[in-house]
Amino acid sequence: MNWYKTMLEISTSGKGLLDITSSVQAQLKEWQVQGGMCFLFIQHTSASLTISENWDSTARADLETFMERLVPERDSWYTHDLEGPDDATSHIRSMLTDSSLTIPIDNGTLSLGTWQGVYVFEHRAHPHRRKVLMRVLSTE
Amino acid sequence: MNWYKTMLEISTSGKGLLDITSSVQAQLKEWQVQGGMCFLFIQHTSASLTISENWDSTARADLETFMERLVPERDSWYTHDLEGPDDATSHIRSMLTDSSLTIPIDNGTLSLGTWQGVYVFEHRAHPHRRKVLMRVLSTE
Amino acid sequence: MNWYKTMLEISTSGKGLLDITSSVQAQLKEWQVQGGMCFLFIQHTSASLTISENWDSTARADLETFMERLVPERDSWYTHDLEGPDDATSHIRSMLTDSSLTIPIDNGTLSLGTWQGVYVFEHRAHPHRRKVLMRVLSTE
Repeated sequence: MNWYKTMLEISTSGKGLLDITSSVQAQLKEWQVQGGMCFLFIQHTSASLTISENWDSTARADLETFMERLVPERDSWYTHDLEGPDDATSHIRSMLTDSSLTIPIDNGTLSLGTWQGVYVFEHRAHPHRRKVLMRVLSTE
Repeated sequence: MNWYKTMLEISTSGKGLLDITSSVQAQLKEWQVQGGMCFLFIQHTSASLTISENWDSTARADLETFMERLVPERDSWYTHDLEGPDDATSHIRSMLTDSSLTIPIDNGTLSLGTWQGVYVFEHRAHPHRRKVLMRVLSTE
Repeated sequence: MNWYKTMLEISTSGKGLLDITSSVQAQLKEWQVQGGMCFLFIQHTSASLTISENWDSTARADLETFMERLVPERDSWYTHDLEGPDDATSHIRSMLTDSSLTIPIDNGTLSLGTWQGVYVFEHRAHPHRRKVLMRVLSTE
């Protein structure tokens, strides 16, 4: 078994879901990993990871709208607003989604379902550079 | 260390939580894995995985009811409804639960707590066949 | 590659987020693990794990308040209340957060972002002793 590691630097353009599947796949190809497990970890508490539908952009729009409605910035009860109205909401939205993803690798590629994509979910209003740690256990 | 892999095919009967613990345990027994880590990954964005209480069925009923209330099909703001009123809601409910689970193995069995069970959470109204990838790192 | 395992026993003082980062780090140091992957798993369905902001306590207060509002105990539709008004709500809040966390290890320490901490989220009103299984794959 072998171990591979890198950090993916992802530039977001403000709030929303950003597909990073091809970046992860490209790295697997570079390492020539055939099978094993891929571990992704985002080093932030105001952006998160999730797996979602990658075919129809309206699916992603609905996920983004849902978050705006479930954790609205206009709520007045937040106490953590040092960095603005998207401060507390970013942490809450991160908690409700994922800080880490664990995805099998087969035949040199992520074993995603037909419609699955890997996403960074940016919760801050402004663009950020996000660090996603990628670790791979190669078993073949 | 050894690596084992299979795909569990799970037939759901429409919306709700389905206990798959015994299927996972049976596979561990077949492989005679004593210790290590079990990785589960569901290849869908309209069904998900979760760990929940396995003793009292009212606990599961409340989880299902909560999801119906938090992400109601009657909401009019969804734009992704090509496949019906359970389309956008399925993706949202999947995002709020898990696409992957990571469970320790000890003494030849999943190291679950006394009341924990492993569940597929079907979010579509109609029955589906769901694919759950099972990967095991055997360390003993 | 080597495999390490232990169980962290965490005493909570009732509802809220409890930082367990230093307990996990201390164990890594004792094992002298330089690099690899850390797997945490909580053996309960009424307490969970999450990664959150560790600098400003108001961030945690807002996460706790959000959960009280999103899954309120005063709701009358719950059927699972054998153990009190915090029974069904505990399971729901656990489902919305994490039962397992997967965190990279580099340079002998968890590769957390600057503001990230590892937390047990106690959902029951009264203090509990919680079991968190810690597994480490050492790759160096």
